[in-house]
This record gives sequence, C-alpha cells and structure tokens, in this order.
Amino acid sequence: MKTQFIDSLADGQAIQDVFIVTEKTMAHKKDGEPFIQARFTDRTGSIRGVIWDNVETVSTRFGHGDYVKINARVTTYRETLQLTVLSVQRVMKEQIDPGDFLPKTKRDTTQMFQQLQTQSQSVKNPHLNLVLHKFWEDSVFVEKFCIAPAAIKMHHAYLGGLLEHTLSVSMLVDRLIKCHYRGIDRDLLLTGAMLHDIGKIEEYEYTTMIDYSTEGRLLNHIIIGIRMLDEKIASIPNFPEMTSQLLRHLVISHHGVREYGSPEPPKTLEAVILHYLDDLDSKIMGIRDYLEKSDESTQWTPFFYPMERHFYKGNTLC
Amino acid sequence: MKTQFIDSLADGQAIQDVFIVTEKTMAHKKDGEPFIQARFTDRTGSIRGVIWDNVETVSTRFGHGDYVKINARVTTYRETLQLTVLSVQRVMKEQIDPGDFLPKTKRDTTQMFQQLQTQSQSVKNPHLNLVLHKFWEDSVFVEKFCIAPAAIKMHHAYLGGLLEHTLSVSMLVDRLIKCHYRGIDRDLLLTGAMLHDIGKIEEYEYTTMIDYSTEGRLLNHIIIGIRMLDEKIASIPNFPEMTSQLLRHLVISHHGVREYGSPEPPKTLEAVILHYLDDLDSKIMGIRDYLEKSDESTQWTPFFYPMERHFYKGNTLC
Amino acid sequence: MKTQFIDSLADGQAIQDVFIVTEKTMAHKKDGEPFIQARFTDRTGSIRGVIWDNVETVSTRFGHGDYVKINARVTTYRETLQLTVLSVQRVMKEQIDPGDFLPKTKRDTTQMFQQLQTQSQSVKNPHLNLVLHKFWEDSVFVEKFCIAPAAIKMHHAYLGGLLEHTLSVSMLVDRLIKCHYRGIDRDLLLTGAMLHDIGKIEEYEYTTMIDYSTEGRLLNHIIIGIRMLDEKIASIPNFPEMTSQLLRHLVISHHGVREYGSPEPPKTLEAVILHYLDDLDSKIMGIRDYLEKSDESTQWTPFFYPMERHFYKGNTLC
Amino acid sequence: MKTQFIDSLADGQAIQDVFIVTEKTMAHKKDGEPFIQARFTDRTGSIRGVIWDNVETVSTRFGHGDYVKINARVTTYRETLQLTVLSVQRVMKEQIDPGDFLPKTKRDTTQMFQQLQTQSQSVKNPHLNLVLHKFWEDSVFVEKFCIAPAAIKMHHAYLGGLLEHTLSVSMLVDRLIKCHYRGIDRDLLLTGAMLHDIGKIEEYEYTTMIDYSTEGRLLNHIIIGIRMLDEKIASIPNFPEMTSQLLRHLVISHHGVREYGSPEPPKTLEAVILHYLDDLDSKIMGIRDYLEKSDESTQWTPFFYPMERHFYKGNTLC
Amino acid sequence: MKTQFIDSLADGQAIQDVFIVTEKTMAHKKDGEPFIQARFTDRTGSIRGVIWDNVETVSTRFGHGDYVKINARVTTYRETLQLTVLSVQRVMKEQIDPGDFLPKTKRDTTQMFQQLQTQSQSVKNPHLNLVLHKFWEDSVFVEKFCIAPAAIKMHHAYLGGLLEHTLSVSMLVDRLIKCHYRGIDRDLLLTGAMLHDIGKIEEYEYTTMIDYSTEGRLLNHIIIGIRMLDEKIASIPNFPEMTSQLLRHLVISHHGVREYGSPEPPKTLEAVILHYLDDLDSKIMGIRDYLEKSDESTQWTPFFYPMERHFYKGNTLC
Amino acid sequence: MKTQFIDSLADGQAIQDVFIVTEKTMAHKKDGEPFIQARFTDRTGSIRGVIWDNVETVSTRFGHGDYVKINARVTTYRETLQLTVLSVQRVMKEQIDPGDFLPKTKRDTTQMFQQLQTQSQSVKNPHLNLVLHKFWEDSVFVEKFCIAPAAIKMHHAYLGGLLEHTLSVSMLVDRLIKCHYRGIDRDLLLTGAMLHDIGKIEEYEYTTMIDYSTEGRLLNHIIIGIRMLDEKIASIPNFPEMTSQLLRHLVISHHGVREYGSPEPPKTLEAVILHYLDDLDSKIMGIRDYLEKSDESTQWTPFFYPMERHFYKGNTLC
Repeated sequence: MKTQFIDSLADGQAIQDVFIVTEKTMAHKKDGEPFIQARFTDRTGSIRGVIWDNVETVSTRFGHGDYVKINARVTTYRETLQLTVLSVQRVMKEQIDPGDFLPKTKRDTTQMFQQLQTQSQSVKNPHLNLVLHKFWEDSVFVEKFCIAPAAIKMHHAYLGGLLEHTLSVSMLVDRLIKCHYRGIDRDLLLTGAMLHDIGKIEEYEYTTMIDYSTEGRLLNHIIIGIRMLDEKIASIPNFPEMTSQLLRHLVISHHGVREYGSPEPPKTLEAVILHYLDDLDSKIMGIRDYLEKSDESTQWTPFFYPMERHFYKGNTLC
Repeated sequence: MKTQFIDSLADGQAIQDVFIVTEKTMAHKKDGEPFIQARFTDRTGSIRGVIWDNVETVSTRFGHGDYVKINARVTTYRETLQLTVLSVQRVMKEQIDPGDFLPKTKRDTTQMFQQLQTQSQSVKNPHLNLVLHKFWEDSVFVEKFCIAPAAIKMHHAYLGGLLEHTLSVSMLVDRLIKCHYRGIDRDLLLTGAMLHDIGKIEEYEYTTMIDYSTEGRLLNHIIIGIRMLDEKIASIPNFPEMTSQLLRHLVISHHGVREYGSPEPPKTLEAVILHYLDDLDSKIMGIRDYLEKSDESTQWTPFFYPMERHFYKGNTLC
Repeated sequence: MKTQFIDSLADGQAIQDVFIVTEKTMAHKKDGEPFIQARFTDRTGSIRGVIWDNVETVSTRFGHGDYVKINARVTTYRETLQLTVLSVQRVMKEQIDPGDFLPKTKRDTTQMFQQLQTQSQSVKNPHLNLVLHKFWEDSVFVEKFCIAPAAIKMHHAYLGGLLEHTLSVSMLVDRLIKCHYRGIDRDLLLTGAMLHDIGKIEEYEYTTMIDYSTEGRLLNHIIIGIRMLDEKIASIPNFPEMTSQLLRHLVISHHGVREYGSPEPPKTLEAVILHYLDDLDSKIMGIRDYLEKSDESTQWTPFFYPMERHFYKGNTLC
Repeated sequence: MKTQFIDSLADGQAIQDVFIVTEKTMAHKKDGEPFIQARFTDRTGSIRGVIWDNVETVSTRFGHGDYVKINARVTTYRETLQLTVLSVQRVMKEQIDPGDFLPKTKRDTTQMFQQLQTQSQSVKNPHLNLVLHKFWEDSVFVEKFCIAPAAIKMHHAYLGGLLEHTLSVSMLVDRLIKCHYRGIDRDLLLTGAMLHDIGKIEEYEYTTMIDYSTEGRLLNHIIIGIRMLDEKIASIPNFPEMTSQLLRHLVISHHGVREYGSPEPPKTLEAVILHYLDDLDSKIMGIRDYLEKSDESTQWTPFFYPMERHFYKGNTLC
Repeated sequence: MKTQFIDSLADGQAIQDVFIVTEKTMAHKKDGEPFIQARFTDRTGSIRGVIWDNVETVSTRFGHGDYVKINARVTTYRETLQLTVLSVQRVMKEQIDPGDFLPKTKRDTTQMFQQLQTQSQSVKNPHLNLVLHKFWEDSVFVEKFCIAPAAIKMHHAYLGGLLEHTLSVSMLVDRLIKCHYRGIDRDLLLTGAMLHDIGKIEEYEYTTMIDYSTEGRLLNHIIIGIRMLDEKIASIPNFPEMTSQLLRHLVISHHGVREYGSPEPPKTLEAVILHYLDDLDSKIMGIRDYLEKSDESTQWTPFFYPMERHFYKGNTLC
Repeated sequence: MKTQFIDSLADGQAIQDVFIVTEKTMAHKKDGEPFIQARFTDRTGSIRGVIWDNVETVSTRFGHGDYVKINARVTTYRETLQLTVLSVQRVMKEQIDPGDFLPKTKRDTTQMFQQLQTQSQSVKNPHLNLVLHKFWEDSVFVEKFCIAPAAIKMHHAYLGGLLEHTLSVSMLVDRLIKCHYRGIDRDLLLTGAMLHDIGKIEEYEYTTMIDYSTEGRLLNHIIIGIRMLDEKIASIPNFPEMTSQLLRHLVISHHGVREYGSPEPPKTLEAVILHYLDDLDSKIMGIRDYLEKSDESTQWTPFFYPMERHFYKGNTLC
C-alpha cells in the first residue's frame, strides 16, 4: 500500500515507496562520469530523479515502464524539487495496486457493478437477458470491465471509467424510455447500452499507463467488442438470428457516423437513441472533468481543444 | 366544417365543399376555346379540376392560394379521378379551419399547453419563472405558439408541431436530468427548453401552406426568437444581466454548431444538454413519421434523404 | 433454359418463357372492369404486360418478385412493344438459372476460381495457407463466393463480379509487389487480398435482383467478413495471435479511411498497399464499364456521377 | 503620460513609470526566502521583473491585470534584460491612457469618425439616415465605437481598428458601387456597411488587454449588434418593417456562410456585396499587418497560419 | 439574317428560316411507315418538328448539330405547337450569325473592347503594357475574345460574356486601387485582371451551343491561358523574370483555393484582390441573371442551386 | 571531400572541415564584449559554435547560408557538445559536394538514370519517344533531374529522390500494364509516368537546404512542368495535337483531385492509373522512411502527422 505521493513531497523528506519509471536516460557529468536521470510517476504526478552511485550496476536493474521501490531524498534544484535516489529495487506488477499509479473513479466500482446487474434483471427478453448474464458470470471479463477506463483522454479517462459510463448510459436509457417515446424495444436498447463499449477492455492498456493496446490500434473496440458478443451469442442455443443482428447493429453503429469509426450509421430507433445518449454522456463528463480541473480564478476555462471552444464556469457548477 | 376530403372521393360523386387552389392556369382546347385547369387541395391530398364554362368571368373570381367553395362532379380521365367544376366561390380565411387544409398534430393542443404551463410553475428562479409567465399570458403569442409547426419538413411538420416538440424536449429535460447529472441549473435549462424555438412562430407561414415567411428567410428563428425574448426581459425590472446572457445563450446555441445556424456553439453544460435533447427529439420524430408513412410490405424504408440512409422497420414499431 | 430474351422481341411474336415480375398493379378500364398491369424482366431488360382475362383468379397466382412462365403475344401500344399475357404460371427459384435474369461476368467463373486456388498455394506461411484452404474447401462458401457480385452499382456489379475483382486484386499484388518493394510480408498481403471482400457474399442479395440484404444494411461486409474469418481461424489450432490480428486488420482497414466504412485506417505497409490496389481495381473497372456502356458517337461520356466528371473516350479504348 | 517603453530599455537604466502586471507568482530562493516574480507589459512588449524585499507586504498591494507605477532598475540575467523592482504602487484605470498599453491605430480617430459622419449624410432614405444619426448622437456608443478593435488577432487588432475597418468598408462601398452595378439600393448597403460590426464594442474587452468579453463569448457580435440596432429602430416611429428586416439581414449575414457565424447567408445583392467587401478589407489588412511585421531579409513571410500559406514580400510593398 | 424566332411562332404560320437541329430520331407510325422526329432550336427556344415525306432521302441530308433552313407550317398537337416540316436544306456555319442561335450580351462588344484597350493604355510598366498590346493586336485572339462566353451556366453564360466580365473586373480594380489601398502594384493587378480568363476562349465551344471543348475538359482555362501568356511573353525580349512569375501567379491563383482549380492560392496582395473582385463580379452577375429570369409574381426566387439558397426580389431590383 | 561529420564528433577533437552556417547572431557577454553564436550543419546534423576573438572582423566574412571551412575544437557546455571556433573561411558553392550537406539517396543515380533511359526506348509511339529523348539529351535538365529531391518532407525528401520516385513509378506502370488491364495506351502512360514530376527541378531549391524556390511557391511544379513540356513539344514538328493534350492532361491531373493542386482530375484511364501509382509510391516510401527513422524499442511509431496515425512496426520490416 503506497503512502507517499508525489503531489505532497517536501524538500528534505526521506522517501521509501513505489513509483513507475516513465523516463530513464544515461547522462554524463562534465568530468565524464555517468549518472542516471529518470522520472518517477504515480497517479498524482511525476518528479525528476538522479542516481549518482554504482550507475552501471543499478542501471541494469530497472527500465522504462517498470515499477520500482526507491530510497531517496527530496532536494531542490533550480527552484524545483527533485529526488536524489540512493537505491532502486524492482517490484512486480502483481504486488502493486494500479489505482495508486493511475487515476481512478471516485465511485465504488463494486456498487456500480451491482446496480448494473440489478438493472439487467429487468430485461424480459430471455435471449437478451441470457446474453447479459453470460457476460456478468464471466469472471475474467468482469474483472477487466470493472477496472477499464472509457477513454485515453477526453472523458472517463480513469480506472473504472468504462463501468461508470456504461452505468450512466444505461440509466439514461431507462429514464428516457420508461414513459417518453412509444415504439421502442426497451430490452434491446438496454442490452445494447450495457454492451456497446465492452471491446474497450482489450482496446486499452491500463496497467502502468492508460494507452491503446496493439490490438486496440489494429482493430478498435467496435471490432473487438463484436467478436466478444459473437462468442457469447454462439454459446446460447437457438439465439434468434434477427435479435442477434439488431443487437450487433447497436454495437457497431453507436458512434453515429462512419467518420467516427462506425462501419454503418444507426438504422433503427434504438440505435439512434443509443448513439445520442452515449455521445451526450461522454461530452457532459468530458466537459465536467475539464471544468473541475481548470483554475478557479477565471470565469472561462482555457481553450478546450477536443471541442474547440472555451467553456463558461461562472455559475454552471453548483 | 369541411366534410368531403380528397382521399375519399369516388367516381361520379357530387362535391360541394371548400378547397385551396394550389395551381391555376388558362389552357386552350383544339378549337381554340379557353378553359381553366386548376388543382384543388386539402390536408388529405390534391386533385386536378377543369372548368369549361364562363371561363373569363369565373377566372377573375379566384386565384392561386385562395380558399374556394366549389360545386363539382368527380369524373375519370385517363384512369385518374378529376373534378369537373361547375361553380366557384371564394371563401375568406377567417371562415375556414386551417386544420382542414394543413396536416395537424394528433394530440390535443389545449392539453399540451396546460402541461407546459404546469411544468413551468416548477421553475423556482423568480426571474425565469416570470419571463415564462410573460409569454404564457401574451395571448397573441400563445395563439400562434399552439398552432405553429416545428419545421417545413423532416419533423413535427404539422400544425401544433412546435408545441408538441417543445413539450417533449421539456419533459426529456425533466426526466433525464432531474437526478442524473449534478451541477446543472435546472431552472435555466428548463426555461431554455421551453423558449428555444419560439422564433418559429414568425419564421414560418402556416395559413394556407407550411412554408418559410419572408422574415424567416431573412432572419431565421434564432434571430427572431432572441428579439422576442429581449422584449419580454426588457419588461421585467431588474432582470439580472448574467441570467439574461445565459438564457439568451441557450436560445442562440441550441443548433449545436455554426454550420446549422447557431452563431455560437453551446458553452455551458445546460446549453450542451439542450442541444442534444432538441436534436434527439427532432430526429426520433422525423424518423418515426417516415417509418409510419412508408409502405408496410417491406422491411426497410425507402432511402431517407435528410439522414442519408434506409431505416429498418422489421420489429422497430410495436 | 431460357431462350427468349426481352432485347430481341418483335411485334407479333408468341412468347413462352420465364421472366421475373418486377411490378404488378391492379388497374381499371373506363367501364370499371379490372385488369392487371405488370412488368416482366430478364437480364436484358424489361417490358410492360397486361392481363385482361380471369383477372381475380390469375392475380392470386403470382406476385412481385416471383419468377413466372408466361404465354403471351408481343403487341405495339403507343409505339412501344408490350405483352398481352394469356396465362401465367409460377416457377420455383430452384428451377431457374439466375444468370438468365441478372447480369453476369463474361469470364469463366470455374477457371477464375482455379486460378485463385493455384495462386493461394504460393502462400508459404502454414497458418495463412491453411486459413485460405479452409475457405476453399467450404463448399457452401465457395458456391456463393463464385456467384456474388462485388457491388450494387459502380464496379463488378454482376454475378461473378466478386470473384473477378478478388482475382484481379490478388494478381495485382503478385505482379506489382513481387519484386518491387522490399520489406513486405507477401504471404500476409496475398491472403488479405483474397479474403478482403468475403463478407459481400452475405452483404448482398443476388437471386432475383442485386441489392443489399438486411444483414448487409445492418452490419456491412467488413463486419460480416471479419466474423467469417474469425470462425475459420478459431478452427485452426495454435493460430498465432499476432498473425490473426494483422490479417484481420487487412480486412477491416481496406476501405482506407473511416468515412468509407473502415473502423481503422491502414496501419501496416501491407494494409496500405491492399487499400490502394483494391481502390485502383474498383475504379478502373467502374470507369471501363461506364465507357463501354456509353453511346459511341461522342468523344466524352455523360457525367459520371459516382466520380463527378466526364471521361474521355477518344482514343482510350483500343 | 507614459515615457519609458519596454522596447527601448537599456541595462542599468532607472525606471519610474506605469506598466500592466500580466503575470505574478510567488517563488522561493534556495534558502527558502520568498520573492515575487512578475511580468510587466506595455504596448511595446513585456519584461520579467523580480521583487526581493518586503515580499509579503508588497504582494498584497497589486495583482494580475493591475496597472502599477514601479521604481526599478534594468539588469541583465542570463543575457536577458530584467527589472529589479524596488517599489510598486497601484494606479487606477481612469488615470491611464489605454493607448500606452495596447496597440493603437496609426490614424486619427476623430478625423476618421468625422469622415464616417459626413459620408452618412449622403444616405437619402430618411429612416436609414435617422437610424445612423441615432447611433452617432449616442455618446456612450460613439466613445466605445472609436476605440474598439475590430478583432483579437488577424486584422485591425488594435484600438481604433473597428472604426478604421468600418470606414474602409464604407468607402469601398462608395467607390466600387456608386456607378458600377445597377439595381443596388445604395442607401441600404451603405447603412449596412456602417453598422455591420457595431456589436464588437461589447464583444471584446479592450481596457488592459484585447480579448473576448463574457458577453462576446456567449452571444458574439452579430447577436449583440442586432440587439443594439433593434433598440435604435424601436425608438424611431413608423420605421418601415421591410426596411428593418433588410437592414437586419445585412448585419446577420455579413459573415457570408453559417460556418463563420452568420445564421443566414446573404440573400440580397446588397448583402452579397457587403460580405465580399468586408471579407476583402479584413484579409488585405490582415496580410499587410503580417507583411509589415515580418523580418526584412527574406522574400517570403513565415507561414501565415490563419490563411495557411506564405506570402511573397518581394516587390509587393512600395 | 434570321427573322422568325421560336418564341413568337403562332398556330398556322408558314416558316422559312434557319434553325439548329438539336435532336433527330427515326420513328414509326402504327402502320410501320417511318417518319422523322426532330427538335429545332434558336436563341429563343426550341420546338418539336415532324417530317412525314421522303423520309429516307431527307434523313441523309442533315444530322444532329447541323444548321438547316426549313420550310414548315406551325400546327398544334396535344395543345402544344409543333412544326410539320416540308423541306430541309443544310446551311453552312459560315453563313449564319451565332448570335441568332446562342444567347448574347446586350451590350456593344466593339465599344466594350475599345474601353478595355483605352484602359490598358494606362498601364505604365513597359513590359506589361507590351504584353497587353501583343494580345490586342492578335486578331485571331481578339475575334474569339470578343465573342466567347465567360461560363457554361451561372454567370455571363452568353456570347460576349467573357469580354463583359473582363471589363467589369478591370473597372472594379481601377476604382478600388486608385485611392484606397496603398502598396498595390496597380500595373500588375490591372494586367492580371485583363488576362485572368483568356484561356476561356479555348476552354469552351460556342458555335452551335455553349459547352466545354475537349481541350477545356482535359486542361481547363487556367492551363490553357498560362500557355497563351507564355507565348506572348516569350515573344518580348528581356521580359523580366520576376514580373513574368508574378503575372503568371495572378492567372493561376485567381480561383482563390485549390478546390476551385487554382494550383496555388493567391500569395501576393494583388492576387488576393483579383480573386475577390473576380468572384464578386461572377456572383453578382449570376444572381442578377437569376433574379431577372424568375417569375415576377413572387417575392423570392426559386431555390438557386449553385448558391444553395433562395434570393429575395422584393425591392432589390430598381 | 568532407571527412569530419557532425554525428561523429567527440569532446576535445580538432576540427578542420566545411559546414553550412544555418544560424548566426551577435551576442554579448556580461562584460559587454560581443561574441558570435552560430550553428554549423552538414547532412548528419548540426552543432552550436561560438567565436570569441576578432569578432567584428570575422563577422564580416560569412553569413547565414554560406559554406565555411572552420578551424575549431569540440568542447562540452551544459552537457552538450559545442564548437569553439578559431578561424572561419568562406568556401564557394562550386567547390563543395551538395551530397555532403543534404541527405541523399542511397542508390546510384547514374545507374537509375540509365534504367529510365533504357525503359524509355520501349515507347514505340515516335512522337512520345522523341519528346522523352529531347529531355534526356538536354544536359541542363538531366543534371538537375538526377539530383533534385521529390519533396520537402514526407517522401523521397533527399537528393536523387525525384529520380528514384520517377523510376519506381515507371516500373510499377510497366508491370501493371504489361498483362493486367487491356485497353490502356502503354506508350502514353509510360511517358506520362516519366514526366509527371519534372517541374520539381525548379519548384525546389536544393543547394544548401531543401526548400521551395520562389518560382515553386508562386507557380508549383504542375505549372512549371507543363511549361517545360510545352517547350519540348513545340520543338518537335507535327506533334499531334490530341497526343499533346492527353500527355499534358497526365501531367496536370496526377495529383488526383483539385484539393491537392491538380486543376482537373484524371479523365482518362491512363490518368487514373498514373494518379494511383504515383500516390501509392509516395505513401509507401514516406511510411518506410518514417518506420526506419523511428526508435527500435517500440512496436509502434510515434504519431505520423502527415497521415494522422501511428504505424505498426512489429513484423512489417523484414
């Protein structure tokens, strides 16, 4: 359990804790002696560190992307804090809690997952209910689904973000369709809402950093997700062909237009609604994250590049 | 009260009822004698008619766009029904019910307007509550607001469509937002939802046909609506300046992007939400209208040009 | 075996052959008597026909989209040939040769398929060789693959077009790439070229007309094809994961950009090359078809809408 | 009256003059002692300054965005000039001349405004003449109108720029149109030219820096300007409705296309002409400013991002 | 000299005049006898004609695109006028006045060309003056330049349109630069204005109809014009290289952006101005033509597709 | 002949060799004494240098863009190598080998040019063969053609790149058309492939750096190339007009669309093929260069901005 975080270090402090190595280069002093420059990171930020002694030996013990336990002292160099590192010891992934190193949802993932399961019991269509059940009882899937982020940046870009986003969209669907529009197949839409982003558990890497995986870059989450869905459907005898096609259509069309990676645009009312609510939830969460991060002393955020505008903070947040 | 409608005429039937003249031209028989060709229209369709006698006199009595009461007989010409018109008498606009001639909402406009008024009482901010009240007590405004269409084509393109759309968006705001996202100014958002399209009462003409007015083409409903809102706000003493700017921002930004006529994109969470729900409601209603209109014997609609795709009808409509 | 084709009928001729019914409506003579108007189609064109006798009885025997054997006589009405139909008898799909009713490649499909098989033996990578082999030995697949069109319009929009296009792209890969660019994984590229469009066998319908299938509209050939590929790969023990991902990437990226339905753009040299050669072959064939169809007396084709220009015919075709 | 400007400071010089504080942060020396780092700005540039003494007391006396009178000495640090500040005293906005701190037109604004007034007397239509007169006699309006910039960057981005641009467009209208195209309503076009950008007086802030105001970001100058115009028109009895609509159309359509913020594109010849001349003047001035700013030793400017190209300087400027 | 024009024919009238054949097909009566259907056209419209006698012989005498002198009588068929043609005689191009068959400027081309020549004498730069002189003294060039249209449709799409447009742009240049913007090379800009569209004399065909030539479609008027300019410059000894490049830049960049066919966008102030004034003149003339053509009884034109909007006619045209 | 290259300098080394001056500024020490800061560049990189002595005199001897022979010593400053320059002597362009200073093809340009000449002998059409011959025997042309780059960045952006690219496209053409598509005019296509980019020899500067020339920016290589081609064609008696137009069409249309600078898109099969193969070759070479440059330790390249994606390196390069 990590206790020393980068955003609360003070000059002179002794450090004995785990960090990720996010940069590591060999440098040379004027006298030609080598030293190691590195950057140490946790979920609260990163700090420069230098290692002066036993450079050759120490250097072989760790590399870029490794978790390391270090003994170090906080010093000040050119008015900035840095670490003088005394010893370095590699730590295995299995021993660490990713939540110490990567940003994480503020909400309780166990509770969110239970909400989702409860809600999925309201799906009356037996085949759709069963396909959801197949996912929820697949412990390998569930473990990743509860921890995966929903994006690299922009919205829900933190551990647990995928679950948070999925639950939010599912609840919007529930509220919207309970009594507003007639003629919507509620079971189909709700199932689609719950499964639309499942491919993201393989599209991203989220152990030492949040980034795309090789599979994610080659195939993206729509293609990965549709394969995961195909496998579950194939395991259910007599799954009706049209139900399968309509559910798969919800998954592949949820980005709304081809330009954003959907091979086909939404062609059913359910698919149109899913696209709008998915997009709404992503945008609202992305903007809110940005509003919360931005300096409190001004009425407007800095320019928000993904949406190409400034946002007004004045009295938006209560 | 009109009783004879074009979609239920039969060969040989005698007609004595009111129609709009939507075409009128003078033609000549082979012997050089003139006759009048015209097209008579009501909300159910249109039919070709010919007038053989007293052509010069009759012709002076009515023109394109007039309502006329005609005596006529239904005949068949080249396997199509047409009218042989015996007499024509102009009828004043005041005497007719536009709902006989233009498509009309199936819902009760009085009831919808009451729902909207009731909902607007839930706005607690006194200035916003008052600005809504100013509109609802303006009888000239209300009369038009309850009968105006929400579009020329695409969605809610019928009398009462504006009210129906406004109520639907307001209810979506209420249902989706009441307890979903925190940090939303509900009063501001709900007031914006109710007033976002008010300019449409002047943007369109909807007496003898649904079309753009000259003012609508020169200025569009955003510019017209903002002026109507300015006038009401100006009549309220001490209306807070920022509340005014934020409410006006909701109106001018609700199309979401400049390409669709919003001079600025949404820059508050409320404006982003209003844009999505307005767009969702328009699209859902536009697609549903198209699904309902299309021939029942196929699984897919014809190509729907405004959204550039076919829609699946299979099991979408229950 | 059909012998009488629409493009060679003559006034007065007696007809006894099979056609598709592509229109059928009930009409009424001036005396109120009903008659049937229909349109009869084969691969060479279509012709209007009328049935005057036993209308109610005859009408129940066939409908739109059916194959029918008719007894009829060719007559002239308003300077156009039409059929006076004496009797109609429905014919089952199984009894007809689709090639009589839909346009068809001029090349020998058996020979083309053998060429493809031969070429696929040059793939040395055992897993890729095996995945191809799995497809070629799947007789249900092969039957459809040899008859499917490659498009609805634009290029290779005829029976056998998919095979013709696939073979052409594979040969381009072979000819252009064999010794031109170094560093290309030839086996991967060739396998991708052969399998890139396989999903089209389910994306289209091509029995009585060439059109999209419901599955095709909901999912498109990239999603369908990737599922077919997944199934074959799953049946091969120890298929290397990276080879699988790279091959699937070739399939999903071959349209080159998201706007044209590829969820991801090409991210390997092989994928970039496949996209270019696929696009080149489609365009060349689409233009050539258009050049060949256009009237011989002018130097320029009419405006070719899919590519938004006229094409020069002067001395292009030898 | 400011006499010491940043672009002419020399090492060792004693400074006693007014600057704007455009950055201010608290820093710490290696011994832990705090000092103030700040940036001081006037219309000629900005310079870094440090305050070593009485840091806590001094720090409370001024903040970011304030005008301050400082006693300081120019020193050199790492080969760059900086200020060692000895005392700081806040100065009220009312006491300073914004022209000392913000870039300013080189032309005489009084003279330009007189030219515009003179030209507006040539408008013969009494209602249009009167609406111009209402603006020119509104001293609050005129004061802002003569000092406002026409843009944040790109063109006329300096005090007085709005007046300069308005006068230039009005003169282009006069020169080009007086006898060139027939069928133009000169009075309407000239009035539109004079009023098309009036909303900019509230769209921007231009006291301590040139930037968007909150109202400008929420509503933009088209919406603000149309409201200002509405108010003047409302104060003129019997202003003809169509003249009002056509004049307002000139204002709302002058950006030419919706993408650039015009809710409707130009739909009259006058509106088309105004758009072209407004755009031409903005571009020419923007390019000329850029040409003048760029280093004299090359034939080409650096890449000009707003127009995405280099400009040739060779013999363009005489 | 043609005296009988299609827009003033009356039933029963005898015709003996020249027309262009714009359609010609062989048809068959019910008795199998052949007859010729043709369409005869002049600058005022076109009319259907039939030839009943000596069909085989007559048919060999003329074809599509030929000028023919006909003897005919005007008759009425299905309430439309048509010609019963009694004899047909081919007429050579040299004998006809294209202005009888194609739309033509209303202005005097000789006078316009003199204006242009006069204006070109004001170019003081000797090399530019000389290059203009070389064009004006080239009688083959001048003959085409005075008769060519400036477009196929849209603006100045009539004989003499190129000269009219060129003169208009040159006069705009003259007025604009005389005293408005400083730093413009007037000689260069004026020469560019006069020569920017010269390639159109070969880009279009304008003998029997206005259309693109083969060269025009393969190369367009920018490429053709630059070659014409190169030839003249090559004939002038010691023409300065930079003047040549800048003048050629004006020609190739005048469409403003690559999307509209300019290989490079304008990169000098002169080129920017030429682009704006060329575009302004084209648009104003295109809109005016459309306004004048449209029915007088409405306030708005029909939808003007090239600019994607309706135009207001109310009080625009004086 | 240069022997000391920047990428292999070592601390303490004595330098006596030629470099290009790519930066030169006068700076001042704290004591006010001036010194020269400069940057010295060759094809392997660049290094900062300082000159402490005889500053005024030395400074007059060389400037930005000059080749200089320097005596210097390599030292280390802030952990970076730099040069302490003892003497500087300007060297004339004629004395240096541009290949020492600019990146250069790895292939033998003499051999590549011979291959191209050999291949051009296969063009049977005598006029096309002759036009190629005219270029190959023009020694001024050939010298530039063999050394010019094919681009500033992106692909073949090195000396000899134009020849390498031209040869590659010509060979692709040869392979493609030998036995694949029928109906292609091989002679025309091959000639076009060889001449499509000739204008680049003047579009770029490639003596001391690779950049656009003034002519290149004003006119681009399509306009420049077409003029070069016009001159050669004009020197061949009786060159057929249509052959000329079709060949010129290949040159002007090879960028495929107007957006990329082709005034007309390809309108013949030959032009379509040339565009595809030119684009394919550019993209493949651009990607390969980027793959080769990127760090070996990762599976993916950094984001490749020109094509807006990462590329997979895994097993792409053999």
